[in-house]
Order: sequence, then C-alpha cells, then structure tokens
Amino acid sequence: MYPDSIKSLIESFKYLPGIGEKTAERLAFSVLELEEEQIDLFSSSLVEVKKKIHNCSNCNLLTDQDECYICKDSVRDNDILCVVEDSKSVFLFEKLGMFHGKYHVLDGLISPLDGVNPEDIGLSKLLDRIHKEKFHEIIFAFKPSIEGETTSLYIKKILDGLDIRITRLASGVPIGADMEYVDSLTLERALSDRKVIE
Amino acid sequence: MYPDSIKSLIESFKYLPGIGEKTAERLAFSVLELEEEQIDLFSSSLVEVKKKIHNCSNCNLLTDQDECYICKDSVRDNDILCVVEDSKSVFLFEKLGMFHGKYHVLDGLISPLDGVNPEDIGLSKLLDRIHKEKFHEIIFAFKPSIEGETTSLYIKKILDGLDIRITRLASGVPIGADMEYVDSLTLERALSDRKVIE
Repeated sequence: MYPDSIKSLIESFKYLPGIGEKTAERLAFSVLELEEEQIDLFSSSLVEVKKKIHNCSNCNLLTDQDECYICKDSVRDNDILCVVEDSKSVFLFEKLGMFHGKYHVLDGLISPLDGVNPEDIGLSKLLDRIHKEKFHEIIFAFKPSIEGETTSLYIKKILDGLDIRITRLASGVPIGADMEYVDSLTLERALSDRKVIE
Repeated sequence: MYPDSIKSLIESFKYLPGIGEKTAERLAFSVLELEEEQIDLFSSSLVEVKKKIHNCSNCNLLTDQDECYICKDSVRDNDILCVVEDSKSVFLFEKLGMFHGKYHVLDGLISPLDGVNPEDIGLSKLLDRIHKEKFHEIIFAFKPSIEGETTSLYIKKILDGLDIRITRLASGVPIGADMEYVDSLTLERALSDRKVIE
C-alpha cells in the first residue's frame, strides 16, 4: 500500500529499540520533510558509525581510534579505575566531569538467568590490566541490581589479597524523589548505608 | 566527548520529530548493534525516499510513480471523493479497507493563526478536479478541530450550487473511551449528532 521506498524506510526504523509500527510510520513520513543535506548526513552517519567505531584496545570503550582519548590522556589520574558495564556509562560520567581517573568497560554484567556468564563479559582483559597498571582504587559503577551486585562480588573475590581499595557507587534515595515512590529495596539500602550528618 | 561519527549520528536522529538528546543517544548506540545489511538498507532507504517520493500529479498523494496506484485503479468508485489533509490519512483509510472511492490530498488545513491561508493548501487543484471528474459525493475527512471545520466550510461555500452531496466524518465519543475522559467539545458534538437507535 505504501510506496516501496517508504515501506523499506518504515522497516528500517523498526530495527531500532522501542520503535513500533506507528512510530516508524511517523518517523518515515517526517524524513520527507527534511532537507536533502540532512538526509545525506543521516544516511552517511549510519554507515560511518558501524565502519569506524570499535572498542579501545586498552579499556574497551567505543572509539574511532586504536586507543581511546581517555587512555591516551596523560593528565588523568592513573591510580584509580572506574569499571563500568557499557560505554554509555563512561560518556555519562564524562559529561558529569567529576571523575578524573581511568575507565574500564565490561561487555555487560554477569547474569546467569540470561545466559551471561563471567567469561562472557571480558573480565580477563580487566584483570590483566589491573595486574599491569597497579591501581590504588577500583570503583565498580554498575547499576544497582542483582546483576550489578553479582558482578561486583565476583570480581572482588578474584582480587582478594591484592592491596587495592575496592569501592562501589553509593545507592539510596535519588535527590528530588518523593519518598512514597521509592521502592523498598532502595529504601532498605538507603537505611543501611545511612551517613552521619556532619 | 563522543567519537565524531557517533556525535553526527546523534545529531541526525535529533532532526526527527519528538526525538531529543537522550533518545537520540540511545538510538545512535543501538545502531552499533545492528547487522551491516540492516544499516545499509536503512541508510539507502533514507536517501531513496527523498529521491523517489513525490506527489501524485492527480490527487497529490505521496507516490513513487507519476500517478499514484489509487488514481490508476480502474475498479474504484469514481463517483465519490474523500478529501483528506495529508497522505497519511489515505494510508490509514486504505488500511481500514472500507472506502473504495477516490481521494484528494490537501497540503494541510486552513489555519490563519499559523499563517496557513486558503491559497496555501492546494485548493485550486481540488476544485479543478471536482469540476472535471463529476463526483456525486465529497467527504471531508479532516481531523475534528477548528482548522478542520474552517477548511470544510470554506470549500463547501465554494461548491455551493453544484449538485454534489457534501458530507463529513461523524465525530463523537470514541469506541471504548471512558466517558469521564471525553472532552466537553467531543461530548457536545456527540450529543448534537446523536442517532436514533433502530
């Protein structure tokens, strides 16, 4: 019913997560309203991103170079490593601009229920690096979840005996949240992690 | 902070309506997970759609041919014309499969507040066609709104004196809606358009 080229654009939008038939249709029609240069840029960026982007050979962050700009940065603090579950987390922290150490990006979190085992998330690369680079502190910055806990504990166990401070992000009631909407696990954590007011 | 190719893909997604920074980031990262063939198809559909799609020379519907498949269809009912505000409406009706007449697609609806005047929505093409093709009935299938009403009344006035039945879609309470969520204008219309139960 749709002309073929509209149909295949609709199908293409549906490849993306969270985009169903209706949204794909809306987006495909909106493409007709774009300028030709915008469409050309869009079209070439799609191809470029897949061609140019790969993982940093050192920290596993997505990059368009061999070593990412963070690994190359000689000004950063080499004593402290922040381990994250994906590249997006690195970009989040960098936007914040508060952390000046190094990062290591895992290939996700251990999740036996989803068939993701310790050997699937690139731990050996992390462990190699920890032995080589002599960090004083390692921060696990995973999302607070069963998978995050499991992954933290699993790595902590392997590192037992090394003289490294191992920390995790604080979790608790988010700033600005209404108490009545905070789930009980978060509240539990907020209570057990309570801090002295100074 | 993002590698350049990710950055320009994020910017591209932001061209689309309803897609802000966060969604654009999420979508750009998801492209990295797609297969190469999917990306190639996506990339080429974007360019193709702009290149191949234009308006039907007769009814103004988006098509990849000179005359659209509906105008060319000799089986359809030539006596009845459904006038719509955009091509998407045609595809909606065609999905429904209930209407077998012809269509005419305006370039939107009259909306003086947005600076859209009668001469901006392609009326002359519609009027030419009405004089030439001798329809028995013309249905205005615009969205129920000030703009829809204005456009219907404006065209109806021009057609006054011609022997054509002029109708509009029924409006009223949508099937399945909760009465308490129906706005007062809709309820007003539902009441004044009430039908005898037979």
